[in-house]
Order: sequence, then C-alpha cells, then structure tokens
Amino acid sequence: MPLSPELVASIKEAVHENFNNQIQFTQKIIQYGGQRGEEAAVQEEMFNQYTSRGYAPKKFEMDEEVLSKHGGAGKFSPQHSRAPVVVGFHEPKSAGSAGKSLILNGHIDIVPTGPEDMWEDGNPYSAVIDGDWLYGRGGGDMRSGLVANMFALDALRKIGKQPASKLILESVPEEESTGNGTMATHLAGFTADAALIPEPTGEALVRANVGVLWFQVEVRGYPVHVSRMTEGSSAISAAWKIVGALQELEKEINEQKGKIPHFEHMKHPINLNVAKIKGGDWASSVPAWCTIDYRVSLYPGTTAKELADKIESIVQKTSEDDPFLSSSPAKVIWNGFFAEGFVLPPSEAENILQTAYHNVNEGTLPDTTSPAYLDARIFTLYDKIPALVYGPLSESVHGFDERVNIKSIERVTAVIALFIAEWCGLEDVA
Amino acid sequence: MPLSPELVASIKEAVHENFNNQIQFTQKIIQYGGQRGEEAAVQEEMFNQYTSRGYAPKKFEMDEEVLSKHGGAGKFSPQHSRAPVVVGFHEPKSAGSAGKSLILNGHIDIVPTGPEDMWEDGNPYSAVIDGDWLYGRGGGDMRSGLVANMFALDALRKIGKQPASKLILESVPEEESTGNGTMATHLAGFTADAALIPEPTGEALVRANVGVLWFQVEVRGYPVHVSRMTEGSSAISAAWKIVGALQELEKEINEQKGKIPHFEHMKHPINLNVAKIKGGDWASSVPAWCTIDYRVSLYPGTTAKELADKIESIVQKTSEDDPFLSSSPAKVIWNGFFAEGFVLPPSEAENILQTAYHNVNEGTLPDTTSPAYLDARIFTLYDKIPALVYGPLSESVHGFDERVNIKSIERVTAVIALFIAEWCGLEDVA
Repeated sequence: MPLSPELVASIKEAVHENFNNQIQFTQKIIQYGGQRGEEAAVQEEMFNQYTSRGYAPKKFEMDEEVLSKHGGAGKFSPQHSRAPVVVGFHEPKSAGSAGKSLILNGHIDIVPTGPEDMWEDGNPYSAVIDGDWLYGRGGGDMRSGLVANMFALDALRKIGKQPASKLILESVPEEESTGNGTMATHLAGFTADAALIPEPTGEALVRANVGVLWFQVEVRGYPVHVSRMTEGSSAISAAWKIVGALQELEKEINEQKGKIPHFEHMKHPINLNVAKIKGGDWASSVPAWCTIDYRVSLYPGTTAKELADKIESIVQKTSEDDPFLSSSPAKVIWNGFFAEGFVLPPSEAENILQTAYHNVNEGTLPDTTSPAYLDARIFTLYDKIPALVYGPLSESVHGFDERVNIKSIERVTAVIALFIAEWCGLEDVA
Repeated sequence: MPLSPELVASIKEAVHENFNNQIQFTQKIIQYGGQRGEEAAVQEEMFNQYTSRGYAPKKFEMDEEVLSKHGGAGKFSPQHSRAPVVVGFHEPKSAGSAGKSLILNGHIDIVPTGPEDMWEDGNPYSAVIDGDWLYGRGGGDMRSGLVANMFALDALRKIGKQPASKLILESVPEEESTGNGTMATHLAGFTADAALIPEPTGEALVRANVGVLWFQVEVRGYPVHVSRMTEGSSAISAAWKIVGALQELEKEINEQKGKIPHFEHMKHPINLNVAKIKGGDWASSVPAWCTIDYRVSLYPGTTAKELADKIESIVQKTSEDDPFLSSSPAKVIWNGFFAEGFVLPPSEAENILQTAYHNVNEGTLPDTTSPAYLDARIFTLYDKIPALVYGPLSESVHGFDERVNIKSIERVTAVIALFIAEWCGLEDVA
C-alpha cells in the first residue's frame, strides 16, 4: 500500500535527524580497517550493534566442506577469510500481516589499500570528511551501505515504527573474493521475498551483472646462469606469453557484446585483470618460476564452467606450443570467485523501490549494468528472489582516496527506509 | 724455473692421493648451504680450515662506508650479506726467494636453488655423487674451486714442500651480487703478483669478461576497480612496457659485437635478464605497483656509468611517453653489481699456467670469453695484476641439478698445484 505523504515526510525527516550519528558510526567502521581474514573485530562490532537493537544476531563460520558442494561457491585458498558471517533478525509482532519479508545485505570485507603513501593523507583508514566526501578504504565499497541498512531501520524506529514482516540483516565477509559469506547465508537457509544490497552504484539500480572468475596460472621455467640465457627458459617470459593468449580471449569475448542484452552499449564490458605477478629469485639467474593471478568476468548466460574450461584449454594450448612449457605445462589454479552473472527480472519489489526513489529524488530510478561482481547473483540465481542492488555515489572504489558522497548516503538511506516501509509494511514498535 | 718431470709427477701423485679427502670436504662444504647473508657458518668452517693449516686467517666485514667510496664497488641493498670475508696467509721461510707472490681467490656465496622439487632428488644440498658428477648448489660455482685452492697447497705439503713466496688464500662472499667481498680484500690492501680463481670455466682460461649491472625498476600505477580497468593504469602493464624498451637496448648492444674483440664470435654476448618481478595486491584491483629486477652485462671498455646513464634515460623516456607514467615516472634503483669488464693481457703468469695445464692434460690451454661476472675484474682493473680464471667443468650452474665433474676437479687441482710450484717457487716445509 502506498505510503501517505505525511509518512514519507516523517521517515525522511527521521533519517535526516539521525544522520550525524550515522556518519559518525560509518567513520568508526571505516577506521576499524580489517583486510581479508582480519574482519573479526569489525564483525564483532556489527554483532554488538545488531544485539543492542534487539536483532538477536547469529554469528557463524563459512564451512568449507558445506560450501564446496555448491557449484557457485568460491574456491577456497589459504587466503580465505575465517571471519564469521553476522546475521540479525527482526521478527514482527503481528504474524500474518500483508508485508513481505526482506533481506538487507552488505559486505564487511574490503580490498587492499595499495602503497599507503599514494593516499592523499597517507592513511587509508582516516575516514576524514572533506566537503561532501567521506574518505577511506571500504567507505564506498561498501561499509556506508552496510551501515545505511541499519540506520534505515533506526529511522523507522525513531517514529515509533518497525517492519510488519520478517527482516534479515546480513553483514558478510568474502564478497570481494569468493562470495562465500552470502553463499553461507543461503546455504544456512536464510531467505526472504526480496533482497536489497546498497553497493556503491551511484544511486542506480543494477539491471544486469557479470559473473567473475579468479585464477592463478603457475609457470615453471628451466633456470640457467644468465650468461647462457638463450639455453634456459624464462618462467617470466613464458608467463607473459600466456597473458597474451588470455588477452586474445578477452578481446574475443568483448567483441560478442552486441549480442548480449544490457551489455551492448558498454565500451569494454569484460575485463581480464593481470592482477598480481610474482616470479624469480635472483637477478643473475633466468627465472625458474612465475605466478600470475587473474580476474576475468563473464556475461550472464555463460556458465562459470564454460569459461573456466576455455581458459584451461588456452593455457594448455599455449603450453603445448612453447618449446619449454610443452614438457612442463603451466598450471591453472582456481582460487576465488567461480560466479555467474545475472539479469534482474522486473518485479513488484523494483516498482516499490522506484516509488521510494521518486519520493526522495523526484525523477526515475536509473538502471545500470555492473561489470563488477555482486553477491546479488546468489539471491537471483539460487534463491530466485528479486535482488535490488542500489547504493550511494562513490569514487575511486578499489583505488587510492576511495570516497563516498555524504549527501548521497543520506538519500540512499531514506530510499531504503521508504522501501522497507512499503515492502514490509509497518507496525508500531510499542 | 721449469719443474723437473719427477717433481711434476710427484705433485700430481700427491693430489691424487689426497683426492678422496678433497671430495669429501667439498661435499661437506656444499652441504653447509648458506644463501646470501647466511654464509657465516660455512665461512667459519673455512676460517677453521685455514687456521688448522697454519694460514693465520683474518676475518673481517665488508664496510659499506669504505666500499661506497670505490666506483667499482657493488651497491648495497637490504639483502647485502653481512657474512665476513676470510683471508689466510702463507709466509715463506726464505725471504727474498725468486718466487712471485700469489692470491688464490674463490667465492663462498651461492645463488638460490629455485623450487626444490625441480631438483632430481629434491635436495639442492645433497652433494650426492653419480658417476663422474658431484651434484649440488654451489658445487661448480664455485665451492669445488675454493676447496681446490686449499688442497693444491695440501698436495705440495704432502711431498714436504710449500710456496717459497707469499701466498694469500681468499674465501669471499658477495661474488654473485656485488663483488664486494673481493673488493673489500682489495681495499684492505691485500695484493700480490698474480691471482688465480678456479671458477667453473670448463678448464679454459678466461680471456675476456663482461661487466655486470644490477638494477630494479619500480613502477607505480593508479588502481581502480577492475570493472573500470580502462580508466586505471596497470603498474604491471607499465612495467612490461619498460621491459620492451630495455630489450631494444639489449638488441642494439648485441648488434655491436662485431666491433668488440673476443666477443665477435658469440651468438648473444650481452644478456638482459628480466629476473624478478613482483606486483599487485588483489585480483580484482588494477595493480598499483610493480617492481622488476634486472641484470645486464656490458663489454670491456664500456664504463658502468655509461650504460647506467643510458638505462636511466630509456626508463625516463618510456615514462614520458606513457600517459600515466609521465606524471608518476618509473624509478631506477641500483642495487648490486656496478662492475666493468676486462680483457686479460698476456703475461708470464699465463705462460706458467699453460705449462702446468700441458703437464696435466697434454695439449694447449684453451681460452674463452666469459659472459658472466667475475671478481677477476677487481685484480685486473684495480690491482693491475694478471688474474687467471680457470677451473673445473660444470653443468647447470645457477640451474637445477648443478653439478661439477669430479675428474675435472682433480685435473684442475693438479694444475693449480703445479702453477703454484713454478710461480711461487718451492721450499721445504720442515
């Protein structure tokens, strides 16, 4: 049922009145830092926040054995986080209301900072505010969104209301590497009628999303003294030959974009990232080993296995064609995302988000295609529920001086609160 | 004075009788291992060996401040070894003999092993013997030679003789990275009328030798989320662009070989080794940094500074031409060898080595051009004394399954003993 103009106004006002607290808490959460595997402290903070609000949270580990049985789970590696997933629960007083249940999901994990001296103020976790922008690793992607989920509920409570249906609050690790945090919530059986994830989309709704694979190619060479270099096989050169072959594949996949709905207009939808490289031990020895870590994306409709098989066959073929690699072939190791893309079907949930958006911003909610991994694929592909990815304006996500726009956070928080109010319905707190 | 056939025969016989002990001790020294910076234990062993033979050794550190003042010293880095140089001294009883003084030099340091599972028996320090070959890292390059120096003197002692002139025994670190071990002996004032270094030359005499430079190129990129990859600048790609530019220089220098005596006949005398690479932190971020360690060689007659300036200007020019690097130029760091090549002039010492060689092998001592760094350049360029580099047959130096030929070690030890006998003259031990 549409919200009355008075209710809309009072929800927006409540978000505004709480907003200083919300930004202060967002700063605190940024200052926690917590690289992959180091999210336990900040998850404890989220657990305590959920607890103090009465969401009776659960805290549980991502179980490798259970996850490994699901084809869409990310592959474990020694770097996989052991931090817990934190999930809070709101139970309505009134069973059997007309409201629909909802998951508000966000990820706690962040990506590395790169050399700290490349940050303007030398501190990736300063959480300083400069004008309309809040700086810091993870501020945009996506701790401001994670916090907004909680403060949207706070705003409703401020006017004496709460959702009239079940609502689940999820703070998950591993969104940046495997998707196993949200996958673990799915495998634990937590589901709802819709999900909302305030990733930094620039206040647009994600209509379509790529899948993502992570892998490492390991090359062994035959080292000799550099003075006899032409007799040896450089593992670094061999590894770079494989880069070339995989870049050909990248080009080929990008050339298919015209046939892929929601991707036709993009300049370069599929990115193969030559992300991490390490090789060689000694300046005067021909390098004996080299590993390269890659990330590549795939269109919705391509299965992870299809692309993985193609990559393996390219690496094998390049090895066969190389005089040295033919006897010591390069190896492909799947060490993270093994995720497929999706297209968001139209839904009642989307219509309600449209209305909420209009009530805050006027105009129409724009949509966008995301060329980056999103946990929404788990809700869409495996829960088969609408998964709305919509969040604040950010800049330099994964880069130096990552920043999120403060006014945008407020608008997004208001939209989330209005969405909850209409999708879940409201009941009095007292 | 030429040695009598009887003396020649008895010296060869003494080497042969000691040879089992010599190989056992060579195995022991290989089994010590001791990568760069970890040579203290094996140097202590050499110190004790010299002491027990009455060579009253000195043990001293390579002093960074003193070394840095010499233009031919290698550049210090955090990896520079702090192991001591060990130098033993033989003083003749008879002052004023006709004999000439001699330095027997060898290096104790070894290069990394690479992945151990690429070694046939999985242990780079096994020192196993298979047929005529003794296996192990450093066996050829050059602990068997270092040990041969000492056992050549042992053989003379076995027949009651010792050099009739001063002789210096040097066991030095850092030959594989800076040359600062032997440079420290030079700066300490130890010199002689000639030097002999039994590097693994395949029983040939080194006539000409390249110089070597070590350097690192550090690149910083501008990371963004991989989904916006085309907006970021990959430090790995930028670093690889510099590889290309430096490989052009390598090609150019090799094309000049026709004009360089002793290098005309070589297929590829100058090698630029793209030796070590490291970059990037995260599979889904465009890499923000990449460092590559290089080794390059130079012809005799080119100064280290000339080539270094050329490399710096190429890196600068490549940076200027790159949209991102132009505002964040790549940096060149000199972190090891800064050494020039040499040509060995004919000398009386060489004639005597020729005779010694003939007395063991018949035939004529072959000569060779070394495309690898040699500490001999310090004796040749700065002490201005003949520096004879001549040692055993080895295979896979710096590679997996490095091995040295045992019969070759015996021949070389005999040649060294005969050389000492004629160059230094002999006197009775008792």
